[in-house]
Amino acid sequence: MSATETKSQVSISLADVMAARERLRGAIYYSPCAHSQMLSAITGQQIYLKLENLQMTGAFKERGALNRLALLTPEQAARGVVAASAGNHAQGVAYHATKRGIRSIIVMPLQTPLVKVTATRGFGAEVVLHGANYDDAYEEARRICAAEDMTFIHPFDDPAVMAGQGTIGLELIEQVPQLEAVVVPIGGGGLIGGIACAVKETNPNIKVVGVQTSRLPSMAVAVKEHQPVTIPAATTIADGIAVRRSGEVTLPVIERYVDEIVTVDEDEIASAILMLLEREKTLAEGAGAVGLAALLQKRTSLNGARTAVVVGGGNIDVTLLSRIIERGLVQDGRMIRLRITLLDKPGALSELTKLIAEHRVNIVDTLYNRAYYGVNLGNTTIDITLETRGREQVEELLAALNEGGFEHSRVV
Amino acid sequence: MSATETKSQVSISLADVMAARERLRGAIYYSPCAHSQMLSAITGQQIYLKLENLQMTGAFKERGALNRLALLTPEQAARGVVAASAGNHAQGVAYHATKRGIRSIIVMPLQTPLVKVTATRGFGAEVVLHGANYDDAYEEARRICAAEDMTFIHPFDDPAVMAGQGTIGLELIEQVPQLEAVVVPIGGGGLIGGIACAVKETNPNIKVVGVQTSRLPSMAVAVKEHQPVTIPAATTIADGIAVRRSGEVTLPVIERYVDEIVTVDEDEIASAILMLLEREKTLAEGAGAVGLAALLQKRTSLNGARTAVVVGGGNIDVTLLSRIIERGLVQDGRMIRLRITLLDKPGALSELTKLIAEHRVNIVDTLYNRAYYGVNLGNTTIDITLETRGREQVEELLAALNEGGFEHSRVV
Repeated sequence: MSATETKSQVSISLADVMAARERLRGAIYYSPCAHSQMLSAITGQQIYLKLENLQMTGAFKERGALNRLALLTPEQAARGVVAASAGNHAQGVAYHATKRGIRSIIVMPLQTPLVKVTATRGFGAEVVLHGANYDDAYEEARRICAAEDMTFIHPFDDPAVMAGQGTIGLELIEQVPQLEAVVVPIGGGGLIGGIACAVKETNPNIKVVGVQTSRLPSMAVAVKEHQPVTIPAATTIADGIAVRRSGEVTLPVIERYVDEIVTVDEDEIASAILMLLEREKTLAEGAGAVGLAALLQKRTSLNGARTAVVVGGGNIDVTLLSRIIERGLVQDGRMIRLRITLLDKPGALSELTKLIAEHRVNIVDTLYNRAYYGVNLGNTTIDITLETRGREQVEELLAALNEGGFEHSRVV
Repeated sequence: MSATETKSQVSISLADVMAARERLRGAIYYSPCAHSQMLSAITGQQIYLKLENLQMTGAFKERGALNRLALLTPEQAARGVVAASAGNHAQGVAYHATKRGIRSIIVMPLQTPLVKVTATRGFGAEVVLHGANYDDAYEEARRICAAEDMTFIHPFDDPAVMAGQGTIGLELIEQVPQLEAVVVPIGGGGLIGGIACAVKETNPNIKVVGVQTSRLPSMAVAVKEHQPVTIPAATTIADGIAVRRSGEVTLPVIERYVDEIVTVDEDEIASAILMLLEREKTLAEGAGAVGLAALLQKRTSLNGARTAVVVGGGNIDVTLLSRIIERGLVQDGRMIRLRITLLDKPGALSELTKLIAEHRVNIVDTLYNRAYYGVNLGNTTIDITLETRGREQVEELLAALNEGGFEHSRVV
């Protein structure tokens, strides 16, 4: 995207990012960025994973928050800061404000999970629960700021926040020899804006690709329209990048420095989470896994490039994770649910379970359906959830069921 | 454990570990060992996590396997190697043998999960499925070795293997400033033997604590009896350290260098896995989580020491992980199953679900039990699985059920 017309509007420079780095030194974890042989083999390009999910609060957001806090005047610091967030930004602001002895108020929507409220309070913030959604919480945070003369810390649309996130770009250049490309999640654009500026101003040959969820492609739309556009709300497992409108400050930076924006679907994100967990032993949240998802789906134009993928955060609800694992197992053929027709007579179920046992398949769950219990004799159906060793074993079992005369169908 | 009488039997030295380190350089990932603020706060001591689950094959076993392979004579290397393992040792041997152009045969028990067989074949080994358990596979591997004049690579009871694992100890000393203690899982004793030798010969003031599952405390028993003892088989989620008899070579090393051996239970291991996942965003297998489990349970005598915990591996079946997550949620009060008595009349379920919805509790699953469907009118029960925000919300809901006249009990 050439955008010379926007050049004057770009609000951060490499010098800002380098200055941010000095401010962050010692207070932010220099997260590992190791080569993954497994993912390199699968994607056909050299993949390095930047594990920002290992930051203290589980996400990169600390960097921008801390840089912003470090730039407060003594008077501003004495009065304190306010933020609106139900997620990683809340914890990043709370943690570093408290460490620096700065009062922080975080406004969270009413339905915020208790675990996130507790975590944010645990980092020393005063939490205000207000409003039905992020927009309501944001308005309340702005109101508190004005009433109490405190400083608002925006999650992305602030040059100081962007410069803080950009420190990741400087680290990537140090950590990955002959870096050719970086793949970065996009919500409001603070993370990719900072990284893209740092990387491109150091080496313009490095490609920068942004990834959004197809449910909320607000930055892709903004780039197309050359202005921020508010798009309809949608739910996504990548809640960390669920932003309906791109930033005003971030958009010109992205127009100047970002080469490509692609999108990924929910199932693709879920698969990437599962792959990071099983193959890389690391826990990513949805927003943290979109970069790998884009590469696995060959959604980018990076053919064979030596690529750093930013895994931005790992704050995923384990209940959701449990469901993602199950969905992934079903997709891989390692878990299957069958509806099987049985003659409603003694021994029918026993014959079926014997056959399943002979194939060393594990029964996880059964649901017995009888339309007219105790009245009609005839057929009945049972839904059985099975754990298998994979597609091969499923095929063997299905063949055996056919041979044994069991009518069956797959329940999706 | 002072054990001057065994001094002469100790088969490895610091020099062996240092030599192993040179052989491993560039071929083994120098895994991170970062300070965990969260775990330090919880345990009251400075905790550093050595993430050996991030090795290429997901576990530390590569180190010992590679050191052993590097010590083969050209003739031995030309004839190839054999190992018996259903787990991490199999993959470690297969991967590094193939990388060095050495033929490898891995004997695995018949019931080995397909995913492990496939992974081991994927690393280039010839896999032989044989026998009902590890002992049978071991016998077959020994038979093949003798018949084909190949070299057997023992998973732990070999000085070269121990020296390879010991390279972790040298890294810990470099990575953790003023290291005071290390906590290491024990199966056969290869890992802790190597680490303890490296650490104690460098700085005898560093404490070395070993951790076993209480289901298979074979090394604890061996140390007590001053000789290897075969203990009864048992299942455990820490299958990576499920060893019924300590090594002959490892035991004297452990008697000389290890300060303390403690055990942890299955639920404690499961909790540690969940904590590593949720708080540290890293996936540990059962055997990899026993060290943290021992610290969380205050099972060791390390009061406040600056401690490195070896997370040895991350190869856990995700189906098992999914169950561990659910069990953890139940323990935390974040998931609960209630059996509720309903009047068997229209609207009864609707009233119940309305009440649950008013408390913003999520229904995961329901099971409707009617003893005499369509015949008797009267009471019926429903089992409802609920996701909550934690114990507080559960208490509120239970109070509301009482007030609403719903008889209920907890299903465990």
